[in-house]
Amino acid sequence: MKLRILSVATAATLLVAVAFVFVAWIERPRKPSESPAVTVGEPWGRQPILPLPPVPDLPAEKVALGERLFFDKRLSADDTIACASCHDFARGGADRLPRSVGVGGRTGNVNAPTVFNAALQFAQFWDGRAATLEEQAAGPVHNPVEMASSWEQVIPKLRADAGYREAFARLYPQGISGATIVDAIAAYERTLLTPSRFDRYLRGDEGALDALEKTGYRRFLDFGCASCHQGRLLGGNMYQRFGVLGDYFGSRPASEANLGRYNVTGREEDRHVFKVPGLRNVAVTAPYFHDGSVASLEEAVILMGRYQLGRELSGQDVTAIVAFLHSLTGEWQGEVLR
Amino acid sequence: MKLRILSVATAATLLVAVAFVFVAWIERPRKPSESPAVTVGEPWGRQPILPLPPVPDLPAEKVALGERLFFDKRLSADDTIACASCHDFARGGADRLPRSVGVGGRTGNVNAPTVFNAALQFAQFWDGRAATLEEQAAGPVHNPVEMASSWEQVIPKLRADAGYREAFARLYPQGISGATIVDAIAAYERTLLTPSRFDRYLRGDEGALDALEKTGYRRFLDFGCASCHQGRLLGGNMYQRFGVLGDYFGSRPASEANLGRYNVTGREEDRHVFKVPGLRNVAVTAPYFHDGSVASLEEAVILMGRYQLGRELSGQDVTAIVAFLHSLTGEWQGEVLR
Repeated sequence: MKLRILSVATAATLLVAVAFVFVAWIERPRKPSESPAVTVGEPWGRQPILPLPPVPDLPAEKVALGERLFFDKRLSADDTIACASCHDFARGGADRLPRSVGVGGRTGNVNAPTVFNAALQFAQFWDGRAATLEEQAAGPVHNPVEMASSWEQVIPKLRADAGYREAFARLYPQGISGATIVDAIAAYERTLLTPSRFDRYLRGDEGALDALEKTGYRRFLDFGCASCHQGRLLGGNMYQRFGVLGDYFGSRPASEANLGRYNVTGREEDRHVFKVPGLRNVAVTAPYFHDGSVASLEEAVILMGRYQLGRELSGQDVTAIVAFLHSLTGEWQGEVLR
Repeated sequence: MKLRILSVATAATLLVAVAFVFVAWIERPRKPSESPAVTVGEPWGRQPILPLPPVPDLPAEKVALGERLFFDKRLSADDTIACASCHDFARGGADRLPRSVGVGGRTGNVNAPTVFNAALQFAQFWDGRAATLEEQAAGPVHNPVEMASSWEQVIPKLRADAGYREAFARLYPQGISGATIVDAIAAYERTLLTPSRFDRYLRGDEGALDALEKTGYRRFLDFGCASCHQGRLLGGNMYQRFGVLGDYFGSRPASEANLGRYNVTGREEDRHVFKVPGLRNVAVTAPYFHDGSVASLEEAVILMGRYQLGRELSGQDVTAIVAFLHSLTGEWQGEVLR
């Protein structure tokens, strides 16, 4: 009898142990899809969310030259595409297309990011392959599916223009060259900063955000969005894997563009790693992600929750976060972006 | 000793039983998110996938009048919006916007579907609230965020036009009225059919699809896409819940438009139920779904797999299905849609 009681006790203990192991297994922490969920590269370290700095005081003549070049279609092979074609100020500094269209209707392989505030990013392009605005500006000029041109083709066209000849001569001893063209464009781009209501809020104006937007900002911080979307741009200061807590690419067709920073470094750990995009003006720069696959901000927030945070956001949280993101829509020279 | 052996045997049996119950629980079949995964309404029954019928032989004068009305902005309150504004032939018969823009920049609450082949649907609008093309055509004229007008405003404008006065007089004893306007527009719309390579394939031309497209079509059938996307339009002949095998709306902000057919019937079982959209010209009519939330066809296929079929499609399957869907891009009067 004693043994029988013991056997029941043993069985019960075993049962509890087995149940415990199973529950522990079911409740195990969710692991990254492929490789460690590390934040890849924090060149500026962990930064707080900060207001935009003032527009830098650059030589007006250089900025004006850069502006003219930015809108000049002669930078493209067939005089049809300017920087402003894909970075359209009436479309939030981008083009509202999943992937941009270059000369002859050719399509690029990633979504054009906004030019606004791009100057404050730690690197340019989705894969960070240009360290500076100057390097970035030369990219599309030469890209066969964008402007499909070259300095050899562009420079004679600009030299034939007396206005350019004089402006370059005044600013640069060497005159018109690839280097001076991108120098002027980059100077112009450094002036394209768009402070918003959110900056007023960060500076202490509690009334600059409404209650829902403040709730959204709190959720944004609490859920960990700001682990990556941080600093002055709420992004643009580190690389991160797309798919930290879910395999974003598993069901998506393979494409070179999806490899992200791997295309630049060739390092296995950079596969599917992208520059974290800044969120300023995100509400007016759909569609979203490097592949331009998502048209609505709500959908983008839901997918970020799922793949980067391992969290299925509630409809209310999505509403609040989207409301907050709308407060990041800025103004450029007094004009509200749209 | 015998008892001890027995107790070990009991424990082992219990262990196996507990393990069995747990595994059965983990491997339990996935259930619909809210309510039974029924196909809601099959007014035409289960239909095979069929080629488009020929364009009906309608009176040429009536079709020409309908065409003129379709492109006439005087149907809107401020003479800025025509049917063709949101159903643009250069944009696949739709507008490439998540939600259409009406008079004064007002935004609608659902994505504009293509007008091409719409005549063959069993009902019109995402929620099926119009049974006929004629009923449908009157909708946008009166919708305050679309044309924001009324027959009382439209008719005097058309009567002031001698061309319209004569055309209507020849065709309709009652002259210009709401009923005759929509009758002519509907006649025109019945001619907007766009056969594609896929119709040639269905009629036996094996070379009309390439190997990848055929694989995609097979996957489309095997995975059960054709349970809903069936008939001549690969859709447009039944209602179905969005979120049969996953809660699509759980993380999305609540909106009246998300209620779908519930707005028409008020029946609880019609919540989140929509007309299954036809897939002809789907490759040229992004963005997708009633909320226009998704910009890429790949993403739309992935989400359909997840929420309607409970299946995470592989990248290869997505590629193949998307290739097949491209074969549904048709031609209108010899012009390939884009």
